[in-house]
Amino acid sequence: MEKYRVAIVGATGLVGQEILKILEQRNFPLSSLSLFASGGTAATTISGSRRAYPVQPLEHLSEHDAFQGVDLVFFAAGEEISRHWIPLAVRTGATAIDSSSFYRMEPDVPLIVPEINPDDIQGHRGIISSPNCSSILLSLVLHPLSKIKSLKKAIVSTYQSTSGVGSAAMIELTLQTEQMLKGESPHPEMFPHEIGFNILPQVDVFLDNGYTKEEFQLLVETRKILHNNDILVSATCVRVPTFKGHCQAVSLEFAGEINLEVAKNTLSKAPGVRVVDDTGINLYPHPRMAAGTDMIMVGRIRQDIFNVNGLVLWVVADNIRKGAALNMVQIAEEILKKGRLKVKGII
Amino acid sequence: MEKYRVAIVGATGLVGQEILKILEQRNFPLSSLSLFASGGTAATTISGSRRAYPVQPLEHLSEHDAFQGVDLVFFAAGEEISRHWIPLAVRTGATAIDSSSFYRMEPDVPLIVPEINPDDIQGHRGIISSPNCSSILLSLVLHPLSKIKSLKKAIVSTYQSTSGVGSAAMIELTLQTEQMLKGESPHPEMFPHEIGFNILPQVDVFLDNGYTKEEFQLLVETRKILHNNDILVSATCVRVPTFKGHCQAVSLEFAGEINLEVAKNTLSKAPGVRVVDDTGINLYPHPRMAAGTDMIMVGRIRQDIFNVNGLVLWVVADNIRKGAALNMVQIAEEILKKGRLKVKGII
Repeated sequence: MEKYRVAIVGATGLVGQEILKILEQRNFPLSSLSLFASGGTAATTISGSRRAYPVQPLEHLSEHDAFQGVDLVFFAAGEEISRHWIPLAVRTGATAIDSSSFYRMEPDVPLIVPEINPDDIQGHRGIISSPNCSSILLSLVLHPLSKIKSLKKAIVSTYQSTSGVGSAAMIELTLQTEQMLKGESPHPEMFPHEIGFNILPQVDVFLDNGYTKEEFQLLVETRKILHNNDILVSATCVRVPTFKGHCQAVSLEFAGEINLEVAKNTLSKAPGVRVVDDTGINLYPHPRMAAGTDMIMVGRIRQDIFNVNGLVLWVVADNIRKGAALNMVQIAEEILKKGRLKVKGII
Repeated sequence: MEKYRVAIVGATGLVGQEILKILEQRNFPLSSLSLFASGGTAATTISGSRRAYPVQPLEHLSEHDAFQGVDLVFFAAGEEISRHWIPLAVRTGATAIDSSSFYRMEPDVPLIVPEINPDDIQGHRGIISSPNCSSILLSLVLHPLSKIKSLKKAIVSTYQSTSGVGSAAMIELTLQTEQMLKGESPHPEMFPHEIGFNILPQVDVFLDNGYTKEEFQLLVETRKILHNNDILVSATCVRVPTFKGHCQAVSLEFAGEINLEVAKNTLSKAPGVRVVDDTGINLYPHPRMAAGTDMIMVGRIRQDIFNVNGLVLWVVADNIRKGAALNMVQIAEEILKKGRLKVKGII
């Protein structure tokens, strides 16, 4: 079995560390694994389950031969790092799998959820993007349902955990919570307002149309993943005081009548999706159930009370695993399966 | 100025204590104030800002002359207490203002939000209901907007605090949070699953149609308050780990085009509503901003990205004040203003 030289950029972050864990869990065929982090966060070593790996400061790399001899680089360090280093990685012959939003909407960059559009990988030119976590959750549910009946519109409200911002945001939630329990007033740093015991209807920056970048991404990324520019997605993305697991309340309108049992049955067979839905015993997915798991969980599936063309449901997933790291490793596996690794990149 | 003999049933609960506080804050014309609580929770006294009040066990009242000599009784002790004691109160000549859901949908019981349908009080026969907190929030926003353009549908996702269940639920949130910060696994008692650092898509019990009672109430109560049985309301009601303040993400569809500036301007002038909306400085309402205040706060007001007939917005209010206690005291004030207190009740 062929083995590959792999690198992770952003290895000390939540997503980077989860990629390392998943590569080990899934026995990814590694011949070498190099870890990089940008200066401020570069630790000496990171412990995998089998061994410890040294972490190199990204800034020590030479720009003209960065990632020389590396087959595949996972980028999990944010837009600025991806913008700068991905072209350099591709130029030296590596294939980049990017978690940032920077290249996602480029026409020649495939935006991949392996259960949905694996064949889009074929045309890649060195960069493959992994969608925003919210887009992955929503697409995995919309894709099988849109095969039953043409989908017109999704109205989505999200309940997004602090881990979506990174480990510093999770620490801020912990510290603010402790302060508030002692009756103290915390000073927000990672969020515009207090996140401890609070709800903030803002994820990412605001655009001129009143939606946030996160809400707009959910629309354009879902369309690109599903190859369907007719789907309307209107979202309100909200940060909630949880550590891991994103939720979505989703209201769908189809072009015609949708049968509830057919919808449930279709979802229960959809790859990457697990139906967790028995209201008789108060069973539905929630973040503490989903944290650490690999599937998108769907519950509270019901017909819209007034609309036989409508369906309402509740989606939860681990935003760091399937919402980011797992999806990226699945993309890598799909690249190998398709033999599409050794593509000389052209930027 | 005439003064009135007032009683509060459920005086030791969150809503009961808030009613007491608001009666004092608004100088309600009291000639006497009697506080009752059911046995298990009856404390000896409750401190108002001006004096301490003794609390009597409800069970010590004689059923045939309960509330004799009382003009007005606030019921804030749940459905079972309201079901049993309200007919007895009305029979002795008192007028009951009820926070429970028990009488809300009775045809001869007005369901009042004083800023919206005060004149419905005229026809009361001794019982006036205060709506569910979620219905009060939503109605206060839908009412002024539906005057601009006929409203077809509201899709609502809620973010409801633990205080909606009562003080024991707030204590459970505190205890579970402390346990989880120490790495312990809590045992849920007030909620079907852990609420600490978690999100639960269930408020109240499930109905056969897959919606919860809370979600169904939001529909039928909104229709009754707005006198409009054509409005469609499809909701997902969700419990979140906050103490006070309910939020709603609301997506509205009107019968025709709705102008964003007209909508904002209308909301900014609507009684009981405060617009808090400046995305340029990340300003929008959130629970910690709304807790302890009297207004419904609305922010993130925007045109639906695909629908000129659509509007999307975010509503937050203190569920214990305007969502319950304040609304009940405002109902009492409206009864006095209309001279509709001394109505001999007929049950």
